[in-house]
Amino acid sequence: MNTFGTHLKISIFGQSHAPVIGVVIDGFPAGITVDTEALQRFMARRAPGGAAYSTKRKEPDVPEFISGFAHGKTCGAPVTAIIRNQDARSSDYEALRDIPRPSHADYTAHVKFGGKNDVAGGGQFSGRLTAPLCIAGGLCMQWLQKQGIAIAAHILSIGNADDIPFDPVRPDCGTLTAGKPPVLDASAWDRMLSEIEDARKMGDSVGGVIECAATGLPAGYGNPMFEGVENKIAQIVFGIPAVKGISFGSGFEGSRVRGSANNDAFVMDGDAVRTKTNNHGGSLGGITSGMPLIFRAAVKPTPSIAQEQDSINLFKRQNTKLTIQGRHDPCIVPRAVPCIEAAAAVAICDILLNSNHPIGE
Amino acid sequence: MNTFGTHLKISIFGQSHAPVIGVVIDGFPAGITVDTEALQRFMARRAPGGAAYSTKRKEPDVPEFISGFAHGKTCGAPVTAIIRNQDARSSDYEALRDIPRPSHADYTAHVKFGGKNDVAGGGQFSGRLTAPLCIAGGLCMQWLQKQGIAIAAHILSIGNADDIPFDPVRPDCGTLTAGKPPVLDASAWDRMLSEIEDARKMGDSVGGVIECAATGLPAGYGNPMFEGVENKIAQIVFGIPAVKGISFGSGFEGSRVRGSANNDAFVMDGDAVRTKTNNHGGSLGGITSGMPLIFRAAVKPTPSIAQEQDSINLFKRQNTKLTIQGRHDPCIVPRAVPCIEAAAAVAICDILLNSNHPIGE
Amino acid sequence: MNTFGTHLKISIFGQSHAPVIGVVIDGFPAGITVDTEALQRFMARRAPGGAAYSTKRKEPDVPEFISGFAHGKTCGAPVTAIIRNQDARSSDYEALRDIPRPSHADYTAHVKFGGKNDVAGGGQFSGRLTAPLCIAGGLCMQWLQKQGIAIAAHILSIGNADDIPFDPVRPDCGTLTAGKPPVLDASAWDRMLSEIEDARKMGDSVGGVIECAATGLPAGYGNPMFEGVENKIAQIVFGIPAVKGISFGSGFEGSRVRGSANNDAFVMDGDAVRTKTNNHGGSLGGITSGMPLIFRAAVKPTPSIAQEQDSINLFKRQNTKLTIQGRHDPCIVPRAVPCIEAAAAVAICDILLNSNHPIGE
Amino acid sequence: MNTFGTHLKISIFGQSHAPVIGVVIDGFPAGITVDTEALQRFMARRAPGGAAYSTKRKEPDVPEFISGFAHGKTCGAPVTAIIRNQDARSSDYEALRDIPRPSHADYTAHVKFGGKNDVAGGGQFSGRLTAPLCIAGGLCMQWLQKQGIAIAAHILSIGNADDIPFDPVRPDCGTLTAGKPPVLDASAWDRMLSEIEDARKMGDSVGGVIECAATGLPAGYGNPMFEGVENKIAQIVFGIPAVKGISFGSGFEGSRVRGSANNDAFVMDGDAVRTKTNNHGGSLGGITSGMPLIFRAAVKPTPSIAQEQDSINLFKRQNTKLTIQGRHDPCIVPRAVPCIEAAAAVAICDILLNSNHPIGE
Repeated sequence: MNTFGTHLKISIFGQSHAPVIGVVIDGFPAGITVDTEALQRFMARRAPGGAAYSTKRKEPDVPEFISGFAHGKTCGAPVTAIIRNQDARSSDYEALRDIPRPSHADYTAHVKFGGKNDVAGGGQFSGRLTAPLCIAGGLCMQWLQKQGIAIAAHILSIGNADDIPFDPVRPDCGTLTAGKPPVLDASAWDRMLSEIEDARKMGDSVGGVIECAATGLPAGYGNPMFEGVENKIAQIVFGIPAVKGISFGSGFEGSRVRGSANNDAFVMDGDAVRTKTNNHGGSLGGITSGMPLIFRAAVKPTPSIAQEQDSINLFKRQNTKLTIQGRHDPCIVPRAVPCIEAAAAVAICDILLNSNHPIGE
Repeated sequence: MNTFGTHLKISIFGQSHAPVIGVVIDGFPAGITVDTEALQRFMARRAPGGAAYSTKRKEPDVPEFISGFAHGKTCGAPVTAIIRNQDARSSDYEALRDIPRPSHADYTAHVKFGGKNDVAGGGQFSGRLTAPLCIAGGLCMQWLQKQGIAIAAHILSIGNADDIPFDPVRPDCGTLTAGKPPVLDASAWDRMLSEIEDARKMGDSVGGVIECAATGLPAGYGNPMFEGVENKIAQIVFGIPAVKGISFGSGFEGSRVRGSANNDAFVMDGDAVRTKTNNHGGSLGGITSGMPLIFRAAVKPTPSIAQEQDSINLFKRQNTKLTIQGRHDPCIVPRAVPCIEAAAAVAICDILLNSNHPIGE
Repeated sequence: MNTFGTHLKISIFGQSHAPVIGVVIDGFPAGITVDTEALQRFMARRAPGGAAYSTKRKEPDVPEFISGFAHGKTCGAPVTAIIRNQDARSSDYEALRDIPRPSHADYTAHVKFGGKNDVAGGGQFSGRLTAPLCIAGGLCMQWLQKQGIAIAAHILSIGNADDIPFDPVRPDCGTLTAGKPPVLDASAWDRMLSEIEDARKMGDSVGGVIECAATGLPAGYGNPMFEGVENKIAQIVFGIPAVKGISFGSGFEGSRVRGSANNDAFVMDGDAVRTKTNNHGGSLGGITSGMPLIFRAAVKPTPSIAQEQDSINLFKRQNTKLTIQGRHDPCIVPRAVPCIEAAAAVAICDILLNSNHPIGE
Repeated sequence: MNTFGTHLKISIFGQSHAPVIGVVIDGFPAGITVDTEALQRFMARRAPGGAAYSTKRKEPDVPEFISGFAHGKTCGAPVTAIIRNQDARSSDYEALRDIPRPSHADYTAHVKFGGKNDVAGGGQFSGRLTAPLCIAGGLCMQWLQKQGIAIAAHILSIGNADDIPFDPVRPDCGTLTAGKPPVLDASAWDRMLSEIEDARKMGDSVGGVIECAATGLPAGYGNPMFEGVENKIAQIVFGIPAVKGISFGSGFEGSRVRGSANNDAFVMDGDAVRTKTNNHGGSLGGITSGMPLIFRAAVKPTPSIAQEQDSINLFKRQNTKLTIQGRHDPCIVPRAVPCIEAAAAVAICDILLNSNHPIGE
């Protein structure tokens, strides 16, 4: 199911090589003017074709809005945007109908859909479907910005090249401006590019970790137990292909230290309540604390590699060798950065638009 | 919101010091006899009062089934089970009304519910609410067992004491039998107890990581994008208090290695399809691969510690010191093990009971 | 599935002869004191045992609140209430295991649940399950009252005995006070009782129509298309056994007249917008208009009648005769009145607690 | 919210005068070839421009499928279809920004969306949005046909001109073939046309009742209480603008008769279970009985009439007169017939694709 959200519902459609990919955004606030240039800049960060580490598939990824507007502003009706696929070469994939690519969804989709699934370019499982996610997220970020909420992500690591992490209490999102590499420590970028280039030369790929921060969130939003901030964000972030882990605040590292070190003391900051540290990552009991929301997502190495791999022939039921043709990214982590931001933005909008708040007597 | 699931819906209710905690399980298959002794053994692994690392609160945690059965078998109506709280001492918490405990949900609940929330024992945010989760999960595990599916978890680490991880291809769940410490390497247990005891002596606490495996899952279940296996399991697992991270398969570690090392080659095993390795953790594209499902959850150190901490007085709006009274676990990781299994079992039932499968022509 | 609602979620459990029936109400506002006497009076209108037209089963139907309160007020945690069944005589139903009662759910439940369903008293399909609905609805009505919203229903007809309908513009809910027959024209009640008594004497039953009004609803709540006011109310009202039709405003009658007669002209009333007539029944495009919400529900004659009926033996696969034993209402319409009010109250709360409103720029 | 369904989810988008209207259908079975000619014939029954009773707006309403197919068959990915609006004349609606049309959603949308809603042609509340519903329903009907399930509707009445009702036990859907008037008694059609023509000449409009039957449904599908057959169908049918009532089986009429007359005796038909009569309309306890599903929907007279009406100026806050310009149907009932069939088809698919069935031991 390709639908996410309760108060803001997004429904993503399309396949890698369908005529169109797109998204319906239901519940988006009315009266909003979209800054299409800013949206296009946001989309461009994800678009393929622009860098050495990126697939050579060329897609301008210009969203066309086909519903949800009146006189240039959102009107409360579902906002629908589509992107026409332009540079699809399905013939690259004919050989893959019988032989599933390791660590792709080819095999599991084959079983689930009885062999009727669209194999071209990975079909609906393609990373290309993150383009409509970015449209939805880009719109949400523009609305959130008006509410004083900023979202920014950077690459924490690619392979073994590490950036510095956010200061969890005061994450410097200003460093992450469009047109510059998405790292906090500029020197990390070269090391990351080397990791990618080394992998590419060997017909291999690398993964990485992306760290995302959202600032300006008011306290008291979210829900207990199964609809909390972490639950919602995890649900959408695992919708991005290749994400295999997520952690909030001090996460896995925090499980190593003691409570006295991991606890975040409350402190008055004028009349505002803050915490001295932010190991909780902005959510306690599934509810926003007013501190920055900080989370990390682990992105696996691109499963499409140029090296010959072992696989099977699904119809002959025998082992075989597979060499993947087509155009692939040796590392999708840089292009996944805006996708993570987009996912966070959609989830945060869904959380904020649920003002199911204390009404009391 | 305390409800999880689409085809199997669970709805958890109660607070730490309410008369009753419980769960409604809607959509559970009809005709099932519950093995109440096995369920009680499962519940006992989570129950407090039994060990040095556990709170001294004594709760027998015997589920009482009040609906959903006819002639001793489930009848298709919602199964409801309750546990009567017995050893609640709310007076321990009176002082906490004004002063939120660091890294608990006291403050965020106060904001969300306008100060009307139940503070006693953490109210609805208490770890005590994992008891009804274990009832639901225990029932699900019994049904799954009939389908040939086993679920088992062990402690991968407490503080800096590490167990060995599961063999992802053939996780040895047999080692993990009731009545023995939940570790694969028996020697790890003593080191873990030392970590806990060291923390306890200093009025401190420790966290850890739990690793869970499910074997016997058929391929082809789950859904693309936002309702995949990872999304579902993450959504429910983050409903367990203190969980701050989750990863599937090689997870965060996998993001460090190359695609050629992380990819899982397909191979015929007789007429069955398997993968040689299992870095994907049993799910590709959100759909089960037929390989064991493997995931890890990071549990933060218990936020309730005996040491004096900095906090604020919510009504006087000023900084203050806080020393937490009451009975607390210096480490909740051992008791969280069955909770993780229970969460996995509920999510897997929800996934399997959705046989929204290829019907085709 | 026994769960209703998005922002206020209710989950009903129990069977006619289970130890307990009850309801979990998730999302109910915090800080509310329940007037238990008013709730009990509301419950008493539905309770069996009190009138000639009612089953002789005696059930005091006193709700016991087992979670969701702190210091006597709702605390934001799910409110759970149970009723212990007291006067269940399952032996009355043993004969029915093989022979489904005409126009009951015995047969369809048998097919759906593979014969594992609880047949005693109709199991989960029993009208007894409207008692927990009334608990939820009674609480919602108390909260709605604080918001200036009143809900009241009356019997529009039983068999061929008709009451006068509500004035749709200014429904006189004041006439409908507890302790008096639920009709607007007092003289209708005797005619209705005659209809019931005539049916009862012949071992037969009668149905009827209930009309419900909600006043004080602000304009602008609800949603377009599939989550509108009518959709929501219809979804919950059809959850009451025996309801087979629902209409809003002029409903089926309105389809007979012309647009010029059915249209509701807008008119200023001071600075408020009203309509001169209210054939739309308070909802246009699924969104409240600020006019009273008016709807009607058709209740079929009680399917349990004393006369011998034709049926089949499910196991012998042959035709047979059936005479239903047990205690049954010759007319459930009077007892269904508070159930309709309760259903409306729950739906309206769910609609109002979704303040997914224009936020705009 | 413009989304319906659990196992088959449809998400409708667009406004009357947006560039495009369309639908995303998520969960549609894989491997299905769409008969586009049959779909086009189905769409043509709803399309405007073809008859005296229809708006003069000309729209060919040819669906363009932009996702969800591979090699000409559905592939398990969401099926998306769009229709480009061609004959939109928004200038007709400029005058309506300030003056809401009686019994339209103009006013309620204005309040809900803070005046930011799209007024042109009724925006998202337009009957035009039933075109994408018909695409979804048309596809579902083709799939249902392969399962042996047929759905057909006819006009039961327009104004005071009545058709004969379906035989509930053996509804003759064969009479209702494309290209002929949608009535069972051919003579009723002339009387209906007279009703429409009489109204049109007076600048007025008429409503009517549509009766729909589904045959071939297996027993045992659906759910108790809030997710039953009636609940589901009512939820989607009230999504069709102008529907103000729905009843199943004997419905409101059934509430007038006695139980002995309304009950449906079970009888063996060979080895199959049937009922002698079908006053229950195919659903008992929310679960299909195997008998034909029969329901009726009341359609109000088109609110757009040519006569001058009373309304208000929303900005000047004063009473005013309104004469509606634009092109409108004096009776939408004939064009609503396929919409009702489509809604039923979508709901039935959603019900059938939930095979959350007895699994037992």
